[in-house]
Amino acid sequence: MVQYYILCSGTIILIEGTVTHFIHFEPVGRRGDAPAGETLLDHARTLGVDLVSLCGGGGGCGRCIIQVLEGEVSKPLTVELDFLRPEEIGQGFRLACCTIPQSDCKVRVPPGSLTSLQRLEIEGDEMSVDVLPITEVYRVVLTPPTMDDPKADAGQLTDALARQHDLDGASLDIDVLRLLSTYARENVDPNSGEWHLRVVLREHEIIGLLQSGAPLLGLAVDLGTTKIALYLLDLNTGQTLVSHGLMNPQIAYGEDVIARIAFSEKDISNASFLRELVVEALNQAVVEMCAKADVEPFSIADAVIVGNTAMHHFFLGLPLKQLARVPYVPAITSALDIKARDLGMDLMPGSYVHLLPNIAAYVGADHTAMLLAVDIEQEQHVTLAIDIGTNTEISLFNQGVVTSTSCASGPAFEGAHIKHGVRAVNGAIEHLHLIDDRIEYQTIGNAPPVGLCGSGILDAMAQLYLAGILDKQGTMHDHPRVCTVDGTREFILVDEVDLSQEKVGETPQLTISITQQDVRQLQLAKGAMRTGIELLLNANGLRMDEIDHVIIAGAFGTYIDIRSAITIGMLPDLPLVRFRQVGNAAGMGAKIALLSRVKRAEARVLAEQIKYLELATHPQFHTTFAHKMHLGSD
Amino acid sequence: MVQYYILCSGTIILIEGTVTHFIHFEPVGRRGDAPAGETLLDHARTLGVDLVSLCGGGGGCGRCIIQVLEGEVSKPLTVELDFLRPEEIGQGFRLACCTIPQSDCKVRVPPGSLTSLQRLEIEGDEMSVDVLPITEVYRVVLTPPTMDDPKADAGQLTDALARQHDLDGASLDIDVLRLLSTYARENVDPNSGEWHLRVVLREHEIIGLLQSGAPLLGLAVDLGTTKIALYLLDLNTGQTLVSHGLMNPQIAYGEDVIARIAFSEKDISNASFLRELVVEALNQAVVEMCAKADVEPFSIADAVIVGNTAMHHFFLGLPLKQLARVPYVPAITSALDIKARDLGMDLMPGSYVHLLPNIAAYVGADHTAMLLAVDIEQEQHVTLAIDIGTNTEISLFNQGVVTSTSCASGPAFEGAHIKHGVRAVNGAIEHLHLIDDRIEYQTIGNAPPVGLCGSGILDAMAQLYLAGILDKQGTMHDHPRVCTVDGTREFILVDEVDLSQEKVGETPQLTISITQQDVRQLQLAKGAMRTGIELLLNANGLRMDEIDHVIIAGAFGTYIDIRSAITIGMLPDLPLVRFRQVGNAAGMGAKIALLSRVKRAEARVLAEQIKYLELATHPQFHTTFAHKMHLGSD
Repeated sequence: MVQYYILCSGTIILIEGTVTHFIHFEPVGRRGDAPAGETLLDHARTLGVDLVSLCGGGGGCGRCIIQVLEGEVSKPLTVELDFLRPEEIGQGFRLACCTIPQSDCKVRVPPGSLTSLQRLEIEGDEMSVDVLPITEVYRVVLTPPTMDDPKADAGQLTDALARQHDLDGASLDIDVLRLLSTYARENVDPNSGEWHLRVVLREHEIIGLLQSGAPLLGLAVDLGTTKIALYLLDLNTGQTLVSHGLMNPQIAYGEDVIARIAFSEKDISNASFLRELVVEALNQAVVEMCAKADVEPFSIADAVIVGNTAMHHFFLGLPLKQLARVPYVPAITSALDIKARDLGMDLMPGSYVHLLPNIAAYVGADHTAMLLAVDIEQEQHVTLAIDIGTNTEISLFNQGVVTSTSCASGPAFEGAHIKHGVRAVNGAIEHLHLIDDRIEYQTIGNAPPVGLCGSGILDAMAQLYLAGILDKQGTMHDHPRVCTVDGTREFILVDEVDLSQEKVGETPQLTISITQQDVRQLQLAKGAMRTGIELLLNANGLRMDEIDHVIIAGAFGTYIDIRSAITIGMLPDLPLVRFRQVGNAAGMGAKIALLSRVKRAEARVLAEQIKYLELATHPQFHTTFAHKMHLGSD
Repeated sequence: MVQYYILCSGTIILIEGTVTHFIHFEPVGRRGDAPAGETLLDHARTLGVDLVSLCGGGGGCGRCIIQVLEGEVSKPLTVELDFLRPEEIGQGFRLACCTIPQSDCKVRVPPGSLTSLQRLEIEGDEMSVDVLPITEVYRVVLTPPTMDDPKADAGQLTDALARQHDLDGASLDIDVLRLLSTYARENVDPNSGEWHLRVVLREHEIIGLLQSGAPLLGLAVDLGTTKIALYLLDLNTGQTLVSHGLMNPQIAYGEDVIARIAFSEKDISNASFLRELVVEALNQAVVEMCAKADVEPFSIADAVIVGNTAMHHFFLGLPLKQLARVPYVPAITSALDIKARDLGMDLMPGSYVHLLPNIAAYVGADHTAMLLAVDIEQEQHVTLAIDIGTNTEISLFNQGVVTSTSCASGPAFEGAHIKHGVRAVNGAIEHLHLIDDRIEYQTIGNAPPVGLCGSGILDAMAQLYLAGILDKQGTMHDHPRVCTVDGTREFILVDEVDLSQEKVGETPQLTISITQQDVRQLQLAKGAMRTGIELLLNANGLRMDEIDHVIIAGAFGTYIDIRSAITIGMLPDLPLVRFRQVGNAAGMGAKIALLSRVKRAEARVLAEQIKYLELATHPQFHTTFAHKMHLGSD
């Protein structure tokens, strides 16, 4: 029996406990014994779970929110009620810095409570799908031909597939046929003299020949406007062997899709140049990933690629002109299976690339993938699924029907067009908190601050609004930290004085601020999003509080503090428990479609049934938008 | 009433007749009135039908054989009985120089009686097939999308095909999809504003978009080891728009397939180099043919290519190693449909190339095409089909079953490895006749003689055998025209004296002779062929005289004098009426398969049912071959 004195928000508490507790943090998968009497924040640090904590653990910032799923813990402190509603506490939500385990515990860490780097690690780990890939490996034994029976190699193989595996009428891809005769004669069983083949079939087509011992692989790609995420999977086990992220090299020719379409129209060769840029980047990434996993690109029998409709069209070499002009028409929305070679992809010789269906010109296959990943059709409740990006796609699931829309939220969430905005790079302020006139903040990688990334901007807005420095209209009022630079009011978040106090010996930084202009950018973005949500609810005859679940996907959406988003009115004011931040759901959907032909077929049906709601011509768009630009929850 | 005196073989005949007769020559399609009392040879000359006549029309050479199908003609002369059997005369066979019409007549000219140039003209004209191409054009009308209904272009098109043509579930080739949006917006009906599309379907796949007014075209190719024949067809009418012939450019890297396979094995890049040579030649030829017909290569919706198995493999980029070595195994024998782009062919964007099935390593798709062209499965009789070339393929049809074999007849028939052998070029002696010690001959294009082509060599052998200068063993005996050069006996066919007498002012020629060595080459070739025929008959339990029809295809086979071939024992000693020389039947078969998907399916079934007879390991091969090398009919 040991006694501990814990300082929590100025209160001294005396607790009796056993020597250790076994704590399991989900979904990061860290677990281990920790001394009894310590807080969950301490345990998390010991086990390497990087919880966000701006105040250092005194219950002052309310960021280290976790959910206790199993086990006994200390009673809630008064200070926690500043950040959590009673119903949320009833569901096990707590601040980690104020919670002391009193038995072994299982604790869920919402993505928003993790630092960016650790969130990247766990992305896509939550997938659960029956592995039923569209390609399969068959082992076939052939008797070498003789003068008395000089049967052609291809005929021998198809006959053997019929005889040995009941697979009638298999056809051969021409590139596989080109390899077959040599491959067969190189795979002789030394004892029997027979040819032992490992043949890859996709439905009734022979698309590849595997060397002995080579695994059957698949590639899932989320082709984002800014970032490309690739996943190399073992199609037998369903395991992700390598994940890989890179910038979309097209970004040098336009930050958003509209700029890239404009570039592609300047010269007839530009569109194919942009296409080749991406294809080369993908092929190069595949080579690197395969090297890392000690496998061959030729073993990749299948690929699923998702992206927004413009990225989809660029990648396939489809015309973009009609997509960028009224009435915004995609060349195709339905799912496609295209030979990898016809797209310039260097995979298994006869393999196909599957493109999930698009929904509309500005609701792409990446959104379909997200809906697949969150299994929206299995939902029993009213569910809102939001993929936040430069373009934000929103779907509402209600009574078996999905209605989707899209709104131009602009690049502000990604740090663009914001005075001190940066992407989610090392040193980006990802969370901040205003305590009196002092700013507490956390940067990605704990590096010296270089600017504000999306979640940091959102926090800044929320903190300024709560402190009354921003009013409902978004106008910035006087405050010791507000100054006027070049005729624009700015709120200083970090200045050189702050920095020199904190990080002695580091390179001095410029001032980091949020300007009146930045606030206006964010208001436009959040206004567009909320308008989309509002009009989807209207179309379904639903009130906001009838939404049971809100699923938030996309890089930005995963990093944001839900409370901040509710505070400024970007997300509906609903209990925390109704929100789920799912990370790169598009990438996860691509993986699911790669692993399961059943899910692939479901996506096809899903996309066909989705109703698309056009906002641009909606009679209520302008009035709703004007109203939804206001700050504050409503 | 007019009286004519006709000198025919020294006989004076008096005939009474009307002023003119209407004479129709088949299959050349020449017809017209000709003065009564003249011979059919005269009529032929008047109407531009180039009958072979070595003796100038005196019944001396027996080459101007025709068959009177309808109408009354003069009675046979005694001299005709030297060249025609009574039963043949009973069937209307006559010498044109001895036959005078006594009414309007319909006359068939066997290919062997025509000069080479004219035979080329009529090649492939005898085709009769119901035009049922595998591709079809559909006219589709689309309503341009609006903001209220911004349906994707591809979806609009497939919906319209379903609604307007009952065609459900059409898929789109990626290259067509790349063109669709732009094409649709360029084909607006000026009155209705609707989009008027002409869409090409191949089964359920959209493989092309036709411009207004463009015809739907097809390409048939006979890819020979030596020559390539191309035919551009209108798939709507079945009409051949352009025929085109060129040398196979691979010939610079090996005259026969064995030499080319050896070349391809010298370096890893050689096989693809040979492939590209042919592909480039085909693409170039297509461009030229299209220019001639004022059409676009993009309108070619379908292609059928046939060749021997080695040419087939070279063209497809399949490995050849296993084909050239015991036990001689093709990579594939079954029919193939391959995207034109995967073969490097520049046709309609989504089009396919169809490869008819091969039968064995040395009985290729060109033989399948021949069997299709002669409609062998419809035969009611015992039929022998022979495609004579460097490699000779022979099929025997008996009681519903086709047995095929192949024998290496060597390049002698094509003039190679023969001292004064030449290909069938201008000036090649194509027919000759020994009258006493004098040689009468005919050259291609009536040009000064440059050497002997295949049919000339055959005539020379036959004439020498008939005159006793060659004995049964093929040994050359003394004769005023026989001399010894470099230790080898030669029979002088044309020498400078002859030449100067005939063609004054022409460039003097060297002596043209046939040597003992040449005779041996021919004996090997004809011995191999006859062995193939003999063993096929044995396998079917048939005697030679039970063969009802002999079909002879291939360039050489079309040009030969059947009588000469029978004389030396290259062809079985059967009545002339049982023989049919069908020209480039492989090319014709390719055309038929192009025009008719029914025939294409028939070819598939046919090839699967064919029994292949291997000669190399046949126990009777050597004894039969030794016997069949002897000259003389038996």
